Amino acid sequence: MNKIHEECGVFGVYAKEKTTVASTTYYGLFALQHRGQESCGIVVNDDGVFQYHKDGGLVNDVFTPQVMQKLGEGNMALGHVRYGTTAASGNQRLDAQPMVINHIKGRMAVAHNGSIINSFELRQELELEGSIFHTTSDTEVISYIITKERLKAHSIEEAVNGAMGRIKGAYSLIVMSASKMIAARDPHGFHPLCYGVTPEGNYIIASETCALDAVGASFVRDILPGEIVIFDGDEIRTIQDHCGEEKQSTCIFEYIYFSRPDSVVDGKSVHAARVNAGACLALEHPVQADVVIGVPDSGLDAAIGYARQSGIPYGMGFIKNKYIGRTFIAPGQKAREDKVRIKLNVVSETVKGKRVVLVDDSIVRGTTSARIVKLLRDAGATEVHMRSSAPPFLYPCYYGTDVDSQKSLIAVNHTMDEIKDIIGVDSIGFLNLDHLGMLIGVPKCEGYCSACFDGQYPTEVPTQKYDTKFERKLSERGE
Amino acid sequence: MNKIHEECGVFGVYAKEKTTVASTTYYGLFALQHRGQESCGIVVNDDGVFQYHKDGGLVNDVFTPQVMQKLGEGNMALGHVRYGTTAASGNQRLDAQPMVINHIKGRMAVAHNGSIINSFELRQELELEGSIFHTTSDTEVISYIITKERLKAHSIEEAVNGAMGRIKGAYSLIVMSASKMIAARDPHGFHPLCYGVTPEGNYIIASETCALDAVGASFVRDILPGEIVIFDGDEIRTIQDHCGEEKQSTCIFEYIYFSRPDSVVDGKSVHAARVNAGACLALEHPVQADVVIGVPDSGLDAAIGYARQSGIPYGMGFIKNKYIGRTFIAPGQKAREDKVRIKLNVVSETVKGKRVVLVDDSIVRGTTSARIVKLLRDAGATEVHMRSSAPPFLYPCYYGTDVDSQKSLIAVNHTMDEIKDIIGVDSIGFLNLDHLGMLIGVPKCEGYCSACFDGQYPTEVPTQKYDTKFERKLSERGE
Amino acid sequence: MNKIHEECGVFGVYAKEKTTVASTTYYGLFALQHRGQESCGIVVNDDGVFQYHKDGGLVNDVFTPQVMQKLGEGNMALGHVRYGTTAASGNQRLDAQPMVINHIKGRMAVAHNGSIINSFELRQELELEGSIFHTTSDTEVISYIITKERLKAHSIEEAVNGAMGRIKGAYSLIVMSASKMIAARDPHGFHPLCYGVTPEGNYIIASETCALDAVGASFVRDILPGEIVIFDGDEIRTIQDHCGEEKQSTCIFEYIYFSRPDSVVDGKSVHAARVNAGACLALEHPVQADVVIGVPDSGLDAAIGYARQSGIPYGMGFIKNKYIGRTFIAPGQKAREDKVRIKLNVVSETVKGKRVVLVDDSIVRGTTSARIVKLLRDAGATEVHMRSSAPPFLYPCYYGTDVDSQKSLIAVNHTMDEIKDIIGVDSIGFLNLDHLGMLIGVPKCEGYCSACFDGQYPTEVPTQKYDTKFERKLSERGE
Amino acid sequence: MNKIHEECGVFGVYAKEKTTVASTTYYGLFALQHRGQESCGIVVNDDGVFQYHKDGGLVNDVFTPQVMQKLGEGNMALGHVRYGTTAASGNQRLDAQPMVINHIKGRMAVAHNGSIINSFELRQELELEGSIFHTTSDTEVISYIITKERLKAHSIEEAVNGAMGRIKGAYSLIVMSASKMIAARDPHGFHPLCYGVTPEGNYIIASETCALDAVGASFVRDILPGEIVIFDGDEIRTIQDHCGEEKQSTCIFEYIYFSRPDSVVDGKSVHAARVNAGACLALEHPVQADVVIGVPDSGLDAAIGYARQSGIPYGMGFIKNKYIGRTFIAPGQKAREDKVRIKLNVVSETVKGKRVVLVDDSIVRGTTSARIVKLLRDAGATEVHMRSSAPPFLYPCYYGTDVDSQKSLIAVNHTMDEIKDIIGVDSIGFLNLDHLGMLIGVPKCEGYCSACFDGQYPTEVPTQKYDTKFERKLSERGE
Repeated sequence: MNKIHEECGVFGVYAKEKTTVASTTYYGLFALQHRGQESCGIVVNDDGVFQYHKDGGLVNDVFTPQVMQKLGEGNMALGHVRYGTTAASGNQRLDAQPMVINHIKGRMAVAHNGSIINSFELRQELELEGSIFHTTSDTEVISYIITKERLKAHSIEEAVNGAMGRIKGAYSLIVMSASKMIAARDPHGFHPLCYGVTPEGNYIIASETCALDAVGASFVRDILPGEIVIFDGDEIRTIQDHCGEEKQSTCIFEYIYFSRPDSVVDGKSVHAARVNAGACLALEHPVQADVVIGVPDSGLDAAIGYARQSGIPYGMGFIKNKYIGRTFIAPGQKAREDKVRIKLNVVSETVKGKRVVLVDDSIVRGTTSARIVKLLRDAGATEVHMRSSAPPFLYPCYYGTDVDSQKSLIAVNHTMDEIKDIIGVDSIGFLNLDHLGMLIGVPKCEGYCSACFDGQYPTEVPTQKYDTKFERKLSERGE
Repeated sequence: MNKIHEECGVFGVYAKEKTTVASTTYYGLFALQHRGQESCGIVVNDDGVFQYHKDGGLVNDVFTPQVMQKLGEGNMALGHVRYGTTAASGNQRLDAQPMVINHIKGRMAVAHNGSIINSFELRQELELEGSIFHTTSDTEVISYIITKERLKAHSIEEAVNGAMGRIKGAYSLIVMSASKMIAARDPHGFHPLCYGVTPEGNYIIASETCALDAVGASFVRDILPGEIVIFDGDEIRTIQDHCGEEKQSTCIFEYIYFSRPDSVVDGKSVHAARVNAGACLALEHPVQADVVIGVPDSGLDAAIGYARQSGIPYGMGFIKNKYIGRTFIAPGQKAREDKVRIKLNVVSETVKGKRVVLVDDSIVRGTTSARIVKLLRDAGATEVHMRSSAPPFLYPCYYGTDVDSQKSLIAVNHTMDEIKDIIGVDSIGFLNLDHLGMLIGVPKCEGYCSACFDGQYPTEVPTQKYDTKFERKLSERGE
Repeated sequence: MNKIHEECGVFGVYAKEKTTVASTTYYGLFALQHRGQESCGIVVNDDGVFQYHKDGGLVNDVFTPQVMQKLGEGNMALGHVRYGTTAASGNQRLDAQPMVINHIKGRMAVAHNGSIINSFELRQELELEGSIFHTTSDTEVISYIITKERLKAHSIEEAVNGAMGRIKGAYSLIVMSASKMIAARDPHGFHPLCYGVTPEGNYIIASETCALDAVGASFVRDILPGEIVIFDGDEIRTIQDHCGEEKQSTCIFEYIYFSRPDSVVDGKSVHAARVNAGACLALEHPVQADVVIGVPDSGLDAAIGYARQSGIPYGMGFIKNKYIGRTFIAPGQKAREDKVRIKLNVVSETVKGKRVVLVDDSIVRGTTSARIVKLLRDAGATEVHMRSSAPPFLYPCYYGTDVDSQKSLIAVNHTMDEIKDIIGVDSIGFLNLDHLGMLIGVPKCEGYCSACFDGQYPTEVPTQKYDTKFERKLSERGE
Repeated sequence: MNKIHEECGVFGVYAKEKTTVASTTYYGLFALQHRGQESCGIVVNDDGVFQYHKDGGLVNDVFTPQVMQKLGEGNMALGHVRYGTTAASGNQRLDAQPMVINHIKGRMAVAHNGSIINSFELRQELELEGSIFHTTSDTEVISYIITKERLKAHSIEEAVNGAMGRIKGAYSLIVMSASKMIAARDPHGFHPLCYGVTPEGNYIIASETCALDAVGASFVRDILPGEIVIFDGDEIRTIQDHCGEEKQSTCIFEYIYFSRPDSVVDGKSVHAARVNAGACLALEHPVQADVVIGVPDSGLDAAIGYARQSGIPYGMGFIKNKYIGRTFIAPGQKAREDKVRIKLNVVSETVKGKRVVLVDDSIVRGTTSARIVKLLRDAGATEVHMRSSAPPFLYPCYYGTDVDSQKSLIAVNHTMDEIKDIIGVDSIGFLNLDHLGMLIGVPKCEGYCSACFDGQYPTEVPTQKYDTKFERKLSERGE
């Protein structure tokens, strides 16, 4: 429904012995499903023999009991969920991760969350040597670079370390070889990555802590920006050559929208950050009103924060249909309008005759917000005051999220007054950029990336890039 | 997850001309999905020609774009969602409704929500005349009785009127003939039934108002207990011969759990009833605490009510995984435990080091509650005080819901102190039976059925009955 | 491809003890698949508890391993394959057999091959008493009549015996009650029905002997026209009250096309009958030619007979694609033309520069024949002489096959010369009606029905009938 | 059923303008299905934009109407059917062809039939440079070699020409670039490859002529051993640098079993070759008998030849179930025995009391033959004389077929007398190796490869190889 999309979630299991690692990964991916709904995959490693399955679809559609049975048991498994394009199914499948490849020293599976800014250059360099590419994804470039490094390195972890010197940008990476599991996070620490341990002593690596909870594992610690953690035999080793190489710049939008509220990212609760955002909004944009409601699900936390700070009662403004899946939209219907009404319904009791504060996590194009506001007015709300717990989106993101081209961003093209009129509200308020740091208790948001709001990119920005979303017409090359 | 189940939802469209009635019904059923997740069906009536599709599964799995295309357009459509048994798929399909039958005067489709208490007697009477039955459902008995009445009546509505004199119990019924749509509600008015009108002037009949909202229809009115409303050509007629025949006794549990909070049943908001229940609980069972949380989704409304009344802050205690569908449960897993953890995760930030009031809509067996309480304690809650917005279940229901046999009801077998220990809480409080009427502002709950709590049945109770849940071994009859 | 269709095949297992009766039935139906490709069903009877599954599709698509597992084991099973209409999937499923119904004395499953000529009258009579019908199939009428008889009878077999006095027409029937399996064949013996025994001592009832072979059973004997055979406990009983009531009139087209060549019907080999037909054609319609070829698969036997009698070498004229299933026909294609070419390809080597005798089992509309002849000419055949091992179709069939309306039958509307020109052959020859008896060595075809060729119906013909192929618009009744 | 398997079939369309190339490819692959039943794929090229779909399964299961719609139209298309392993579904999909890759000069799709004998060496060389491999298939090696050559070449066809100097073994190849379609056949001409033209002037490239027939194309000519044919704009060009480089050695088993009888390979009819084989057998191994029958489908042609030469009547000995697909084999069954009985049934009429000559195309392990002979004896055959139109298999094949390891070949381990006893026949006769040339009218079989029978390999044999059938445990490499 017109949201910014995260591109991936990764999950790995490193077990002491052969066990049901595939189903552990299934549950882990299921908990990370919000990070990617287009395709998913699981690779099971049974003492060096890889079995895998990847396809377009949600985790519980792709991984049927039959597929799970085929995957069998193993001592390691690697999984991935991906937000992708609406490409032909063949392409969708190939682009599904983890990527499994063979190289001179063996076999590896790679799962990646993020976006490489020098992938175009690296790819061109590889292609000039005669390399072939099956996909347009950064993951294949990463796999190549690791393989090239492996030629000179003594181990796969050294190769990963070497590769980290060459690939620039955002990557939370898990590499599974025949015998080792390796987690790596880029020196900026753009996206989260952590590990935990189960009561049985098996290690779990995941994009978010909510996936550790889902499989009954206890959180151990976050992978540091620039760190490589190696799970090998009984030991856990770390390589920190790239730590401190760059100033940390974790994506602040992970707290505002991407991560699940029950996750703790780099030691800070996502739910708490959102409640704080709501409180800030109440301080910045106070209003006389009767009830505070949130847009389910991602606006609810901030609505609670706004209500607490303002003293205006918190209410349940909407019921979200909980059976939403691949809901069929009849061709004859006025599609967009119905889509909102089918997913959300107003609880009239809450808003009828009331002055309503409506809190959402962010406003991208404004079209969905306008529809929701209309639903509230139809249900009898006398005033609607919109509050967004994200500042206005003004700049593109190059680190693994799909902030639309600037053309479609409402805040790029309109003044606050215009936005208020487009959405149809009595007042509007976005979180003040200067207060972003209050979400996580860090002055000036130091150590976090807020480039999509302020244009302050922590890296060079790519000049050119293989588009992972809309396949470039490769025929332009001549053949 | 261990809840009381409603058995059905019904939905009908009566259009002025041939249009996309199938997709309207699709969206209507999708909004009523909470009333039945086992099977569903749609019958499209194109000027007397019926096309239909029924199968086990959720609405958006059963009704694929291909199926919708086959159903085509029509001037009327009838739909049904059903909570049923885990019978063999063949049986599930046959038992799926609407039921389509041919009789001497034509063809009809019947969709039914409720349970007939004299179905055993009626069926025996019919069988003694040599009638055959394809299913064990009450709907087939109803269809037969209407057909028998039709032999003497002048119209299908008269036949329905006649049948209402013979069938006893709970029924919210929609009958679609070649040219008419007929809605009927039993004289007790056990379950809801209402109708509305779309901007195009088409009529919508539905179990709940939330389905009217989903298809953009305005609520017109509830069908009265004992009333028959006929949609025929341009007119809407009503037969009220059976109105007032019985004392109204609408199911109070529709407000507590069955209906969606955004629905308005017989003029009263379901959400408001639940918020009221929470407020009553705060008055009845006050406690010193730091935060009030609800069990998603059905405990959230009452939690808001408890928080408002008590002044204890409302918090978000859990994140519910929103991709829950037919989640695969690995055979090697400790199934029940995982099932709770996979669906719900605690927001530690909210409960860590806090005294928590945990509000749920009801407690049936107590096993799920115990699991949830354990999750809270593991997350650091220092005290957990459980509050149930339903009184304790003590008696079976004969009117279309599946309250478990008394054996498994925790309140039948245990004292409050025992329940407290089983669930593992510091205190427990159920809504006081005497205060039930406060939910809907009616002294002594007059006009509502609360037999599952107090054993005061508004009808005779059936001596014997074809079991619709566990197929009776018919071989006992001899053949 | 433009053929006359048989409407059904039936198969039953009566085992000494609980065993894999479902898979035995699966293999039996698989061998009978040629008798019906539209839908199929299996009912497993485990000591009176029925589990069943029915759906549109081929046996090996409908009965997946998961479905088979759900069906489980039992001591009896009943199966059915059906040729039906292209109705909406809902209807197709309901019309799928066996039909499972409950009546006053218990439960039964009914599988039927044939067509009842007085079903309209019986149905009207039943409807006037207020009976309801879920389907438009004769099987439901038969079930009702048996149930009505059961009210006065002492046993299910007596009820079947009574019903046989009331239902007229063609029926090869298997009725499975909680404890008995009953096979019955109409007094004319229109369609085949036989039984056999497995090495384990389990009884198998089937439409054709090829199904006994497929499950490793030995043929015991054919059910006699008018006979009822009861499998009950350790004994096999027979009721022969209706034997001899009518003059036997087995469908001669079972030998020409319907039955599989490896089956033996009423003591006569189907393959031998077809080879004989080819020999007759060689005697009746001799021609100077270089090679005799058959249209696969059903024209091959007669081609062998023609070649042997004439001394002209038998050749392989066509290769039939053996992966034919639900082949996708692209919308943009010249559909009919491609359909023939995709299924059949000429072996040029066999026909190039040759005078070809082309043998097919029958010619219905002539359009497919014309396409095939064109393929031969394109491949270089210098002359094509068509021979049909069936006489020309001139009359409708009322006994369970779907001979098209007379309008589309080529022989009704055209002279032999015209047919020759339409099909594009150098000469044409149909089997002479007077020689039909030579197929099975019976003078004047005494005891066989050849009404589709000669209009001599062995029964009264129905005045009116519920159309089982194209659903009558029931709204004509008024409601 | 225990046969030697061909590994692939290829099919390409080069159209003058945008049209339904996907459905043409569908029908072409459907006609080539006998060359590979495990997986299939189609790539549509719409002016340089590739859409593709590949999956495990038969053509008419994988290519549903929805998939066909997604593939859309284009001006070129490339398709492939593959016989593969029972690997995990993920692997099966990835290994499915055509392979689509991107390289420095653009994009290409590659479809390949055959087997490269120096693929291990080429792969090792590539891996030492740091290349990564997604599959273990030769096609990826071929793609790489072409890409490497492309770095120095001026065009894709030159790159293919260069690659042909480096890859050794059997390959019938189609390469599709953004703007060209290129067909290439190895210098030995191991497997067939030809092209034709449709009435609309579109070019079709296919493994066998039967696929040209299926899409209504006329045969133009075979691609020569060592030739490259380029379809580019309006012209068709040829590069013949590698022609004559090696002595032609077309696989003789293409005539005996692999190709469809209606195909013409290198100017010789497959059907005629088989009839000739039957005639040879009659001359080499005469016997007094009453009937000659073939094992369907591949033994029928030779049976006709044996019958003609011997004067013993040809008969129809078996009916093969024509609905065979992915038939469910019940776990509780004696699997192998049933499998034969379910697929084949004896026509007793043909063999009862007769001395039977049984002709099959070849005998691999002998187990299926023994089962078939038992069926004949059970049906009353008094004598069974087995004749194989292939000589005994004695050596492994390295050119793209899966002749079993020598261990399981019956002729390697047993004398003729032992084979006779194992199979249970009265006499046995294999085609004499010295007479192989008579099949295609070539003395001493000059220009054909019969290495599986005589061990005379036309190339060096590989010392080591990535196993394409059973994935080598790559962990042996260390990682």
